[in-house]
Amino acid sequence: MKKITPHHFSSEELLKSIQNPNVEPSINQIKRILHGMHPSEVAHTMESLPPKERKFLWSLIEIQDEGEIIAELHDEIQQELISEILPDELIAIIQDLELDKIVDILQTLPDRTTENILASMSKRDRQRIKDVLEYPVDSAGGLMNTDIISVRPKHSLEVVMRYLRAQKKLPQNTDKIFVVSRENKYLGSLSVSTIVVSDPSLNVRELMETETDPLSANLNDKDVSRLFEQNDWVSAPVVDDSKNLIGRITIDDVVDVIMEDADQNFLGMAGIAEDTFAAPARAARSRILWLSINLMTAFIASMTISLFQQTIDEIVYLAILMPIVASMGGVAGTQTLTIMIRGLTLQQINKTNINWLYKRELAVSIVNGILLSILVGGITYLWFNSITISILICFAMIVNLICSAVAGIFIPIMLRKFNQDPAIAGSVVVTTVTDVIGFFSFLGLASLVLI
Amino acid sequence: MKKITPHHFSSEELLKSIQNPNVEPSINQIKRILHGMHPSEVAHTMESLPPKERKFLWSLIEIQDEGEIIAELHDEIQQELISEILPDELIAIIQDLELDKIVDILQTLPDRTTENILASMSKRDRQRIKDVLEYPVDSAGGLMNTDIISVRPKHSLEVVMRYLRAQKKLPQNTDKIFVVSRENKYLGSLSVSTIVVSDPSLNVRELMETETDPLSANLNDKDVSRLFEQNDWVSAPVVDDSKNLIGRITIDDVVDVIMEDADQNFLGMAGIAEDTFAAPARAARSRILWLSINLMTAFIASMTISLFQQTIDEIVYLAILMPIVASMGGVAGTQTLTIMIRGLTLQQINKTNINWLYKRELAVSIVNGILLSILVGGITYLWFNSITISILICFAMIVNLICSAVAGIFIPIMLRKFNQDPAIAGSVVVTTVTDVIGFFSFLGLASLVLI
Repeated sequence: MKKITPHHFSSEELLKSIQNPNVEPSINQIKRILHGMHPSEVAHTMESLPPKERKFLWSLIEIQDEGEIIAELHDEIQQELISEILPDELIAIIQDLELDKIVDILQTLPDRTTENILASMSKRDRQRIKDVLEYPVDSAGGLMNTDIISVRPKHSLEVVMRYLRAQKKLPQNTDKIFVVSRENKYLGSLSVSTIVVSDPSLNVRELMETETDPLSANLNDKDVSRLFEQNDWVSAPVVDDSKNLIGRITIDDVVDVIMEDADQNFLGMAGIAEDTFAAPARAARSRILWLSINLMTAFIASMTISLFQQTIDEIVYLAILMPIVASMGGVAGTQTLTIMIRGLTLQQINKTNINWLYKRELAVSIVNGILLSILVGGITYLWFNSITISILICFAMIVNLICSAVAGIFIPIMLRKFNQDPAIAGSVVVTTVTDVIGFFSFLGLASLVLI
Repeated sequence: MKKITPHHFSSEELLKSIQNPNVEPSINQIKRILHGMHPSEVAHTMESLPPKERKFLWSLIEIQDEGEIIAELHDEIQQELISEILPDELIAIIQDLELDKIVDILQTLPDRTTENILASMSKRDRQRIKDVLEYPVDSAGGLMNTDIISVRPKHSLEVVMRYLRAQKKLPQNTDKIFVVSRENKYLGSLSVSTIVVSDPSLNVRELMETETDPLSANLNDKDVSRLFEQNDWVSAPVVDDSKNLIGRITIDDVVDVIMEDADQNFLGMAGIAEDTFAAPARAARSRILWLSINLMTAFIASMTISLFQQTIDEIVYLAILMPIVASMGGVAGTQTLTIMIRGLTLQQINKTNINWLYKRELAVSIVNGILLSILVGGITYLWFNSITISILICFAMIVNLICSAVAGIFIPIMLRKFNQDPAIAGSVVVTTVTDVIGFFSFLGLASLVLI
C-alpha cells in the first residue's frame, strides 16, 4: 500500500476522502494527515467544505491543533464554529495561542464569554489583552500585538544583543525593535538588519531611526494599510495619545485587512454577507434583503411605465424597445459609480478634483451616448422601419446616459454624507434612477411626439 | 509668513495650489515641498490629479527624485508617463533604482527600448535583470528580486555575522538569508532573528530552517500571494527548475499584487480598464466596448419581447410588469455569480464540492423565489386586481430565479474553460440569460393562459 503523507496528499484528495469516508485512506490516516498539515491549509480545507462535512473534519482534528486552526479561519466560519464550543472548552483550546490571535477571537465573542475567558488568564496576559480590547476592531489599536521588544537609547549594541539572546526567540515578523525613554515614550526604532551589520560598540542612539512617526492607536485600519503599502513596512509601532509605546502592527495582519476589505467590497456590490459554503438557510437569509430592496425599486420602474400605459397600448414597439434605454443607462451609471467608489476608497477624490471628474464623466457620457445612439438608431430603423422611433430612442438614450453620469457622481457622495457605504447601497440607487429616467424619457418623448 | 514644510502641508492643500499656481505657496515652495515628500506620497498626489495638472506637477519634480516616484505609480499612469520620456532620459532617471524596480518598469516597455536601456547597464546588472525578464510578469520569477544574500551550511554564525557586517546594509525586507550548496542549490533559510538570538559559535547547518519548500520560478503570482498570506511570510526564496537559488520575493511586492488583483476584479465587473483621472478620450474609449456588448445583449432581450408583441398589444399590463421579472433574475444571478467568482478566486471550489454548491444555490433560489413571488403576487393583485396576472408573475419569477442559479453556477465554469475571466465577462452573460428567460417565461406563460 502507498504510504500517505501530507506532501503526497492534495487538499482536493483530502476533500474527496472526507466526503466518502468509507474508501481509503482510513479515518486514522486522515487524522494523521491533518495533524501534519499547516494550520492555514487545514483552515482552507475547512472553508472549502459544506457545513456537514466541515463538522466531520473538525471532529477529526486533535485538540492541541484546534486553536491555531480556529485562528486561521475567515471571520464568519470562525464565529459559527466558536458558537458551538462551550466557554470552558474554548479557553482550553485558545489559551496557548499568541496574544494577538486570542484578541482576534475574543473580539468576535459576546462580552460575557470574553469576561469568563479573561478571568481564567494570568494577570499579566489579561492586562495586555484588555489594553487591545479597549480599541475598536477596525483601528490601529485593535489591530496591534503587544509583543514588543523595546530598548533604551543609551545602551550599546553589545548590551542589546545580549538582551536579545536572553529572549531565545523573537516574536514573529520582528524586523525592528523599538527605542523608548524611561517613561516608555516612543523615541525611534532600530532594525534587526542594522543590529546585524553594525559595530557592536555603537550606541542605540547613534543607530536608531527617528524619522518615521509611530501610528496612533486611534488610526483607522484602512489608513494603516495604506501607510504599510506606501512605505513597504514589515512592522510599525503603535502609541497612545500620550505617545507611550503600547504595541506594534505586523504586515501579516495588514494583509488580512486588505484581503478582507477587498472581499467585502466585492461581495457587498451584490448584497451578499456570507461565506462560500454557508448552509442554505443562512445563504437564503443573507440574500433576501437585497432581493427585496431590488423588488421595491423594480416596482418603482414599473410605475413609471404605467404612467404611459395608453401610449404603449397604441404603439406596442415602445414596449419592445424600452428595456434597451433603461439597461444602457444602468450599465453607464454603474461604470461611473465604480470609478467613484474606487477613487474614494483610494482617497484620490476630494474637493479639488471632483469638479474635473464630474465634467469628464459628462463628456464621456455625451460622446459615448452619441456614438451608441447612432448604432441604436440604425438598428432600430432596420428593424421597425420608422425614422420617428429611431430618433426617439436616440434622444432618450443620450438623455439617460447624461443622467447616469450625474447619478454615478452624486449618489455615492450623498450616501457617504448619510454614512452609507457606496459600495453596498450605490448600485441599487443608481440603477433605480437610470431605470426610471430611461423609461420616462423614452415613453414620455414618445407620448409627446406620437400621440 | 507661515513656514511651509511637507509635514504642515496636506496633500489636499498641495492639490489645490497646483491647480491655482498663482496663490501661495510659490512654485519654488511647491518644489521644495515635493522634494521633501516620500516618493509614494508624491505618486499618490499625481494619481489624484487630472492629466494637465499631473503634467505640471511632474515638471516641478527634481530629476533625482523622478525614478523613485515613477516606480511608485500605478501601472497605467506609469506607462502613460514613460511613453512621453525619451529612452536616454529614461535611462538617466531609472539607473539608480533598485533592480526589482527597474525590472518592473522594463516589463511595461516595448522590447526595443528595453534593449537600449539594458545595453547602457553594467554587465552584472544586465545579466541579473535578464534573469528576471525571462519569466512572465505574473509568475514568481517575474516578481522576484535578485538581491539575495546566501551562505554555506558549514559556516559558523560568527563567520556569517562578519560577512553581514562587511555588507554595511542589508537589502530592504531581509528577514532571512538563504543557505545554498557549493553548486548554488537551495538548502534552507536562516532568519535574521535567529542570527541575533543564537550562540555565535553554532553552525548554520544547526540553525537553518529546511521545512519550507522554496517557490518555483514558474509559480503563478496569485498562488504566490496565497502562500504568503497563509504562511505569514515576509520573504521567500525562488528557485529554478534545477533547484538553483535565483532570487527572493518580498511581502511589499506581494501586497502590490494583492491590491492590483482586487482593483482589477472590482473595475473588471463594470468593464473598466483605466485610472480614476484618465483623460476623457481615454475613458470614453475604455468604456464603449463594454457598453456596445451590453447594447447587443439588450437587443437580444428586446427580440425576446417582440416574439410576444401580440400578447402585449392585447394586455398592456404585461409591458408594465415584465421588467420586474427580468430584473429580479438579474440580481439573483449576479449573487450566485459573485459567490462563484469569489470561491474560484480563493481556490475553494473544485470537483468535490461544486455539486453541493449547485444544489445549495438551487435551494436558495427556490426558497427566495417562493417568498418573493408571494410578495410580488400580493402587490400585483392590489395594483391590477387580477388573480390571473398575479399567478402568472409568481410562476415566471420562480422559473427565472431557478434559471438564474443554474446560469450563475455554470457560466463562470464555462468561461474558465474558454480561458475567459468570469469576473469580467460573467455578469453580462448571466444577465443576458436572466433577461431573456425573464421576458420569455412571463410573456410566454401569459400568451398560453390569456390568449
